[in-house]
Amino acid sequence: MTLRFLPLNNCLNLCCRNVVSFSDGLADKSTGVPYFYLTTLDPTARNALKDHRSSLTISEYPIGTCGKADPENPVCSKITLTGKLVPVDANSKESEFAQAALFAKHPEMKEWPKNHDFRIFKLEAENIFMINWFGGPKPLTVEEYLKYKMSV
Amino acid sequence: MTLRFLPLNNCLNLCCRNVVSFSDGLADKSTGVPYFYLTTLDPTARNALKDHRSSLTISEYPIGTCGKADPENPVCSKITLTGKLVPVDANSKESEFAQAALFAKHPEMKEWPKNHDFRIFKLEAENIFMINWFGGPKPLTVEEYLKYKMSV
Repeated sequence: MTLRFLPLNNCLNLCCRNVVSFSDGLADKSTGVPYFYLTTLDPTARNALKDHRSSLTISEYPIGTCGKADPENPVCSKITLTGKLVPVDANSKESEFAQAALFAKHPEMKEWPKNHDFRIFKLEAENIFMINWFGGPKPLTVEEYLKYKMSV
Repeated sequence: MTLRFLPLNNCLNLCCRNVVSFSDGLADKSTGVPYFYLTTLDPTARNALKDHRSSLTISEYPIGTCGKADPENPVCSKITLTGKLVPVDANSKESEFAQAALFAKHPEMKEWPKNHDFRIFKLEAENIFMINWFGGPKPLTVEEYLKYKMSV
């Protein structure tokens, strides 16, 4: 995935939509699981620790592969993962993997203040909403999404 | 505003986040009120007709004015308008204004199928969440937002 930003909606109340960076793996090892590096100084991480329900919406448009199509045109894909935004155990292999993936894609994260309580989170998808052609949203299970192999 | 797409979250249930195009006026007459051209064949418009509660999240990042800052960096602005997504009366002056604004910014909309029930909607903001610098979200009332004059 080359997309570098996204809107993240991590609660069902007002004012909980944010724009945050993510990574789902190193460039050649995309996992489909979005990882985040969030500070609890911001409401997104604070809310997630209280109420995990979140969603993540991504547009194909900024990647530049929609040609001249308008971003709303169904040929320009959009996907929303809805599920739980949960912290990743800081001493786990998964955290190591996620940090490497995040820092490779977002190099300035390495320099973000150590005393700002940045933590690694991941979105555990439970439902997927995707439009990638005419005819309305496409049925896509989380299992199908996670096992999909990118053809580069 | 030069941004051409956005995520629109128009219900509080699962799978209601979408990426749609908007315009808030002709290039030199930005009003701050986002207008949309949505088909009721898609869930976004259908849901809005049943439950107006919606939010709209916009990132400064795609405009290119964040320099080299990461999209999550607070110096790269992000704003969410939360409020009601309502249809605009098709025979009103406002609808004429909105259609001109939308079609000027998104020329292919003119060609979208007439039989797909496209209608003009607007987001009536009630709350604003904005991060545009360090120090957490900035307090900004809807009144302050709407009366702000862009300095070009």
